[in-house]
Amino acid sequence: MKIIAIDSSGLVASVAVVEDDILIAEYNVQYKKTHSQTLLPMLDELKKMVDLDLKTVDAIALAKGPGSFTGLRIGSATAKGLGFALEIPLIEIPTLDGMACCLYGTDKLICPIMDARRNQVYTGIYEFKKTQKEPSAYELTRLLPQCAVSIEEIAERCNAYDREVIFLGDGVPVFAKRLAELMHVPYGFAPAHMNRQRAAAFAFLAIQYFKEGNYVAAKDHAPEYLRLSQAEREKAEKCC
Amino acid sequence: MKIIAIDSSGLVASVAVVEDDILIAEYNVQYKKTHSQTLLPMLDELKKMVDLDLKTVDAIALAKGPGSFTGLRIGSATAKGLGFALEIPLIEIPTLDGMACCLYGTDKLICPIMDARRNQVYTGIYEFKKTQKEPSAYELTRLLPQCAVSIEEIAERCNAYDREVIFLGDGVPVFAKRLAELMHVPYGFAPAHMNRQRAAAFAFLAIQYFKEGNYVAAKDHAPEYLRLSQAEREKAEKCC
Repeated sequence: MKIIAIDSSGLVASVAVVEDDILIAEYNVQYKKTHSQTLLPMLDELKKMVDLDLKTVDAIALAKGPGSFTGLRIGSATAKGLGFALEIPLIEIPTLDGMACCLYGTDKLICPIMDARRNQVYTGIYEFKKTQKEPSAYELTRLLPQCAVSIEEIAERCNAYDREVIFLGDGVPVFAKRLAELMHVPYGFAPAHMNRQRAAAFAFLAIQYFKEGNYVAAKDHAPEYLRLSQAEREKAEKCC
Repeated sequence: MKIIAIDSSGLVASVAVVEDDILIAEYNVQYKKTHSQTLLPMLDELKKMVDLDLKTVDAIALAKGPGSFTGLRIGSATAKGLGFALEIPLIEIPTLDGMACCLYGTDKLICPIMDARRNQVYTGIYEFKKTQKEPSAYELTRLLPQCAVSIEEIAERCNAYDREVIFLGDGVPVFAKRLAELMHVPYGFAPAHMNRQRAAAFAFLAIQYFKEGNYVAAKDHAPEYLRLSQAEREKAEKCC
């Protein structure tokens, strides 16, 4: 099966074309341009580079959220447009789950953190466990599903496992000093090539999801924000 | 520090721009085009996408070999040209070391295998160990430095460690069945997003090398083939 995976949930714009266990092409950019300037041109570039016939694509995978509200909307709109035009389904990957897959094969706990502003992070706690079907492969396991909490709370939850933790995500540079105060178990940070969103890592989960029938029609997809937007929050505050 | 990393040692053409712990951009393609068609256009594409001022680049990192002879020459010529024009050094990364870095953070042994034809693989055995300088970080350790051996020999060497092994590289689809016969310890294969060369993973080592002063002038770089080329081999056979 062949999928296009896209991610624009955070600072990175990322596009990948994966066919089974082959990463045909990927393009990742972490730069100050907005995703509306980068995402579709990047996909167009890949399409030309690998002579991709869009009619051969089985599904579009995307980071469903949480993340930057504008970023998620750009990703969703792009994926919906492609899915609708090509009449193929969308595979929705929880953002933090996809990020954790950057560290496939580790025995440590994986804790992706995105800066969610307002003293919160989008985060979760994961580990890779041997699959029952294929004992030579590992599958992502959620110890704490993605959520929006304070850095203090996620540190406390990590400490409770009494295992080494690898952090990744754009929350790392923001909260590294605070983590040094809060963490009581050994911990480290993923290096540059593994420390941000990567569509190819989302595709790893997406292929599993697709095989399990876990996908939606393009018209039924909506991003998962996990929190109210600023506008919604302010409206709610005015009402009360 | 800012580096451009390139790899064209195998089936993948790969370019990355890394600044310290930030992967600014990467572009990876595994497609039937030759690297002379892809590598420089990919770099040009990245340069435009992230408004890269080449004068701000400190060094060019590249896979020094082994690998496809033609691929290595295209990578070397590209890196030498850039290094010479920009008056910056080249950081030479052993191909198999760079591949192993795709699996940073694993506790398993890492065994990259490239199909070297003539019943051999380019391979090595690696693990990530905690660094002494920074206990929260891991560094690549060579248990068997890169070499050209038979699949039987590398399997035997892996078995001797009595530890789980993760294989990656273009040798996997070629030798998967043979490995099933040869391996006596638990083993698995890296998934699509981690199973081939990736310039960003080479950059992880390149930044360490640069800090240690481990680099060369562009004029002094030459690929490391590990074996004689077919032409050299045939010439040698005629002489004897």
